[in-house]
Amino acid sequence: MMNTPICEMFGIEFPLLAFTHCRDVVVAVSKAGGMGVFGAAGLTPSQLEEELAWIDAHVDGKPYGVDLIVPNKVEGKGETISPEDMLGRLPEQHKTFAHNLLAAYDVDESGLDELRVRQLTFSDNLRGAGTNAMLDVAFRHPIRLIANALGVPPRAMLEQGRAHGVAVAALVGAKEHALAQVAAGVDLLIVAGGEAGGHCGDVATMVLVPEVCRALEAAGVNTPVLAAGGIATGAQMAAAMAMGAAGAWCGSVWLTTSEAETNPVVKEKMLAASSRDTVRSRSRTGKPSRQLRSPWTDAWEAESAPKPLPMPLQSFISEPALRKVDKLSQSDHTGAKALATYWVGQAVGLMNQSMSAGQVVQDFKEDFLRAHERLNRALGA
Amino acid sequence: MMNTPICEMFGIEFPLLAFTHCRDVVVAVSKAGGMGVFGAAGLTPSQLEEELAWIDAHVDGKPYGVDLIVPNKVEGKGETISPEDMLGRLPEQHKTFAHNLLAAYDVDESGLDELRVRQLTFSDNLRGAGTNAMLDVAFRHPIRLIANALGVPPRAMLEQGRAHGVAVAALVGAKEHALAQVAAGVDLLIVAGGEAGGHCGDVATMVLVPEVCRALEAAGVNTPVLAAGGIATGAQMAAAMAMGAAGAWCGSVWLTTSEAETNPVVKEKMLAASSRDTVRSRSRTGKPSRQLRSPWTDAWEAESAPKPLPMPLQSFISEPALRKVDKLSQSDHTGAKALATYWVGQAVGLMNQSMSAGQVVQDFKEDFLRAHERLNRALGA
Repeated sequence: MMNTPICEMFGIEFPLLAFTHCRDVVVAVSKAGGMGVFGAAGLTPSQLEEELAWIDAHVDGKPYGVDLIVPNKVEGKGETISPEDMLGRLPEQHKTFAHNLLAAYDVDESGLDELRVRQLTFSDNLRGAGTNAMLDVAFRHPIRLIANALGVPPRAMLEQGRAHGVAVAALVGAKEHALAQVAAGVDLLIVAGGEAGGHCGDVATMVLVPEVCRALEAAGVNTPVLAAGGIATGAQMAAAMAMGAAGAWCGSVWLTTSEAETNPVVKEKMLAASSRDTVRSRSRTGKPSRQLRSPWTDAWEAESAPKPLPMPLQSFISEPALRKVDKLSQSDHTGAKALATYWVGQAVGLMNQSMSAGQVVQDFKEDFLRAHERLNRALGA
Repeated sequence: MMNTPICEMFGIEFPLLAFTHCRDVVVAVSKAGGMGVFGAAGLTPSQLEEELAWIDAHVDGKPYGVDLIVPNKVEGKGETISPEDMLGRLPEQHKTFAHNLLAAYDVDESGLDELRVRQLTFSDNLRGAGTNAMLDVAFRHPIRLIANALGVPPRAMLEQGRAHGVAVAALVGAKEHALAQVAAGVDLLIVAGGEAGGHCGDVATMVLVPEVCRALEAAGVNTPVLAAGGIATGAQMAAAMAMGAAGAWCGSVWLTTSEAETNPVVKEKMLAASSRDTVRSRSRTGKPSRQLRSPWTDAWEAESAPKPLPMPLQSFISEPALRKVDKLSQSDHTGAKALATYWVGQAVGLMNQSMSAGQVVQDFKEDFLRAHERLNRALGA
């Protein structure tokens, strides 16, 4: 058992938190001595209920958490918007661009409308319309952590967290945001560098972690910091902790585990990718997020491409198309295999071998010790 | 004395290398137990001779190095180009854009032509025309390291390095480049993340360092790696070494030291800046380089701005203008103070206090030990 504020806060052996949309990974990491955090954005409350019930039945009482995305700024926040109205806000230019791109890769559009309607759930969650129902479900389960991925957590999350004795965490990509989050009352900061997969800022982990730690110290605050962004090995985790982090928060590294529900085509691409095969782009959600490069992301980065729509509108363009692509790619469709992509950080360059999530945790522990030994040797200690 | 291949290679106590254009910093760092590396790009051979003679007279026999920029790809490489021809290659569009930008900030253009002509020295060095003369000067002095900043070192550098027993180093921003450099025969890799000041790639230090170390190990190569990019503290240096680096190479952190010849206006901006106040842009040299943001860099990032010219042409647009701006800014010219900028990495967010270069080295050592102690505590060791 390591001795850090994170181990103490959650009663875990090893301060490695696993962000994942896969319940099996949550369970495997928590059982291996870390802590799984289930990414619930995109689910309905009843789907979330089902997933958390499964986790409860399998996690042997080990701690786990839930992560939501409730951004502070989003198109139509707080408004009641009908499905027709939301879909009606999509410009023809963007629909046509996506259509032409799919057509160029022989992907037809059958079923896309239905997928667009399903995308409304994610949009409702983003706009806060579904937040309270999601929180109600989450807090009915023995979660130990609830995290918000974009901006200051909504007041209901902070209040229910306090009422239930559940730690509330927030992701930040800048020093100023870290201080704002602490002022808002979060218990734990996830400090994510621009090399992270998914939504991210543009300051690198190597700079952001010590910069935030120094700012917290100057403010007389001892909120623990989890380092995120680019971390896929125990040596990197040790590096982050040498700079003042109390542990690590990893997302990408679980995508190539044997448990992960990642599209197998994308999983293979990830295992083969180098750190240069990602791009930080607004083309998937409307906010900058880091993804595996593919002809899909390249096309949206071209100067001739339409500018991405504000969140959540861009997702109505990208998600239905990319789900169709995912599905087709698995039936050996050449065009779909080329286009297939998913969020992943630059750490993809370090993910070269598929293994179980439990084995990843074990490897982290051993690699952490080797990193410590390297410093001992350098210091002749 | 630390125990790393870098300490052994140079007989230094602490494996911290200081890239700087300021000879006082070279001397101060080498005397404090690290090693100064003098950045000579932009100088004439006779200027270099003068600077190195000064260093020899002041460095008390401590080791130091020299850094050149000889890119593999550059406009007019190998060609003999007259000053008129080189200046004639500058498009009106770019000259007009720079002119209008300066005018908007009340900066007149007197003296710019003369500065453009002086810029030819840098251009000659870049294009390799002046490389041999520079190498001849460098190798007449007791240098211990010669580094090339962009691409594989020219053959003459590798051969003379071998003949004189001087280590040859190269900066790399990608795993593939690291392997190519090792194949070309460099003795030392400076692995620089995208958070670095000056020319840089876009993979973050946190990922690139372990990725390169893993690739070298897989190739059965034990070329030492210096980590660069974002590092301005001993804890970050310890982090990099926990991930496999044999030491650190820092540039930005010396810019705010008391010895540095940095424009005092820019120095004040750097001390006040956060990590988000830099931009990676092609607008200064034609290749992506990270700089302090100012209205100058913002204007070049605007969509309406002309696309930067290939190296070395863009420097004929930017350098003379920014030297004029530097000079004017120091006479309290409001517009020039606003425009003033210089290369710096995201580590600028950690540079909050001016001190001597020797004190920076001392702080690094103490902070390194604190970082090691953090890991000891986490492990209960």
